[in-house]
Amino acid sequence: MRRARREQAVPDRRDEASAVPAERGSTHVVESRLTGPVRVVGVGLLGTSIGLGLRARGVEVILADASPTHVAIAVDYGAGRAPAAGDEPELVVVCVPPDVTADVVAAELAAFPNAIVTDVASVKAPILAALRERGADVSRYLGSHPMAGRERGGPMAGRADLFVGRPWVVAAHEDISYRRAAIVDDLILDLGATLIEMTPEAQDLAVAIVSHTPQVVSSLMARRLVDAPESALGLAGGGVRDVTRVAASDPGLWVQILGANAPAVAEQLRAFRDDLDRFIEALDDPAAPGARRRIAEELAGGNTGVERLPGKHGVDRRFVALTVMVDDRPGQLARLFEDVGAAGVNIEDLRLEHSPGAQIGLAEIAIVPEARERLIEELAVRGWRIAG
Amino acid sequence: MRRARREQAVPDRRDEASAVPAERGSTHVVESRLTGPVRVVGVGLLGTSIGLGLRARGVEVILADASPTHVAIAVDYGAGRAPAAGDEPELVVVCVPPDVTADVVAAELAAFPNAIVTDVASVKAPILAALRERGADVSRYLGSHPMAGRERGGPMAGRADLFVGRPWVVAAHEDISYRRAAIVDDLILDLGATLIEMTPEAQDLAVAIVSHTPQVVSSLMARRLVDAPESALGLAGGGVRDVTRVAASDPGLWVQILGANAPAVAEQLRAFRDDLDRFIEALDDPAAPGARRRIAEELAGGNTGVERLPGKHGVDRRFVALTVMVDDRPGQLARLFEDVGAAGVNIEDLRLEHSPGAQIGLAEIAIVPEARERLIEELAVRGWRIAG
Repeated sequence: MRRARREQAVPDRRDEASAVPAERGSTHVVESRLTGPVRVVGVGLLGTSIGLGLRARGVEVILADASPTHVAIAVDYGAGRAPAAGDEPELVVVCVPPDVTADVVAAELAAFPNAIVTDVASVKAPILAALRERGADVSRYLGSHPMAGRERGGPMAGRADLFVGRPWVVAAHEDISYRRAAIVDDLILDLGATLIEMTPEAQDLAVAIVSHTPQVVSSLMARRLVDAPESALGLAGGGVRDVTRVAASDPGLWVQILGANAPAVAEQLRAFRDDLDRFIEALDDPAAPGARRRIAEELAGGNTGVERLPGKHGVDRRFVALTVMVDDRPGQLARLFEDVGAAGVNIEDLRLEHSPGAQIGLAEIAIVPEARERLIEELAVRGWRIAG
Repeated sequence: MRRARREQAVPDRRDEASAVPAERGSTHVVESRLTGPVRVVGVGLLGTSIGLGLRARGVEVILADASPTHVAIAVDYGAGRAPAAGDEPELVVVCVPPDVTADVVAAELAAFPNAIVTDVASVKAPILAALRERGADVSRYLGSHPMAGRERGGPMAGRADLFVGRPWVVAAHEDISYRRAAIVDDLILDLGATLIEMTPEAQDLAVAIVSHTPQVVSSLMARRLVDAPESALGLAGGGVRDVTRVAASDPGLWVQILGANAPAVAEQLRAFRDDLDRFIEALDDPAAPGARRRIAEELAGGNTGVERLPGKHGVDRRFVALTVMVDDRPGQLARLFEDVGAAGVNIEDLRLEHSPGAQIGLAEIAIVPEARERLIEELAVRGWRIAG
């Protein structure tokens, strides 16, 4: 993995790019390094968001889609203009469903012999292999994968800021030159994303581990709830909600994603199943010698794994949690955060919990440990009730 | 399942109880229906929290623990007093680790022949069976299980409000009279929890489904991260963090919980494994006839399951999400929530997301659908950037 080739090469530009999110509400247009028009093929959530983001940087955007209605909506939305005869895009971004991405990339490479073509599908190696197989000019193709999405799809869900602060993988390969690849970096940095360079194989393994396998595990866990007694669901707490949250994802899209990355995901699921088999065996005779030790070791392995996740979510040892009771009415959270801010404490993470029927919720805020005692005191003085 | 026998029987009292959490910061003591002293055995997180909650209601609390140091801490903390010769508790609450709960309950039943004894262990049927087996007087025993906890344990983690608004199961059985059982209801309502009555078997199945199985699945998923390449972890998003969050739980405690509920959990895990086997088989040959349909059906089953979860978390169709960009410095969330509150909109749920290295975070707030367009306008006017 190599991070942000362009960031390193052009530090002043990086400063500009990272300055954008810091200026809240800014409408200042920072000029793009992209000079020619960018053609976006497929104006769903990602394509429309890319168009909106580039338009905000003053880039000329051409919007193409199998559905003229979608193009019309995206044009009205300000994401670019409809295609015209003689269009000569500098860059083509293919944002169509995974199943047809290779076909569309090949067609765009053929239609625009001077353009660099990228795509945003979540699995990269099969697309590159398919293009090579059919003799497409991969010296002008560089696949990429933005780690961004929303529950809602379609052009109306598009947002200029969808990619800001998100990782965006560039799936580097040997057949495209450094000079040609730079335009894909420009696209990514223009949209405020964090560029991460990996081989297609490394990226596909990475998403198998951190995205596709968790999706399958979450869906299969949620399936257990289908026949659960109503009374059991009444006891559901934050744990099962967390584990099953992504199980709400669109099966139609995920069939395509999992199909494209099937070998890598199946390998992860097989390793998961091996652990599961050992676990079930231990549970079937928990009094057997070593059974409890095996259970404890599997659980401790989970501790180790979750500690490896970076960032502010999950178990982050840099922060401690404080749970504050909040009345369930407008303005209460505002009062809480005002009081926390007034104490000079930054909220690093936050979760809200609310039991059915209760008049109050619990706001769990993560803060730096050294602020904990002081904040407890300050909040108590202001009448807040600390639940933990 | 029957809810809140006492709530139904004494509606005026219920109003008092539910009024407590609504009075933010109130120190007003609502008198308890518990008249005699309550003896709490085991002053960890739960025992200390029960002591603190009862003391706040003016109830006399006796604190017992194998560790005199723990008792001394809990006494200093205001959770009750140390035991004395001639103590005649009306109610004994056993809050010791699951493995020793039945032993301690039996000893307390023998030591205090006029007291009702309850416990707070998360698995109920084996304890009742163990007590019957040894001929303990189960006409004075009524097990219970508060759905509350914290990551931190020990008396210092105790909070008077730990149980407010949380479900608390009473594991009803035939050998205790209605009159005697009422004192356990009183305890639960005094502590502000929501009383739910189930048989021990129904409760153990319920927690196997909504708590124990998700815990195992989360831990086994997190184990996959132990050997993951560093570069893969850099792509981790909200999905894998959610799925693995509870994998951070204490293995020592969970070995005991899972050991006590082993048959029910193993049955759930076996059903999970059957689905997993079918899933892996489909992924091994995704081009085979029917393979994609099988994958889609498993994923759609997950959709159905997660939709059954009640409450404000997970997929709640009553609300829509709005993602707002927030600078990573103190007071920014306060400003946001102040502005949302000023717009008269209640925040039903909230999640913060933050990419490593980004200067801004994304606050995803859940609101009622009819407020969405108006809130977007109001926030935009105040300079907020909506990311979705």
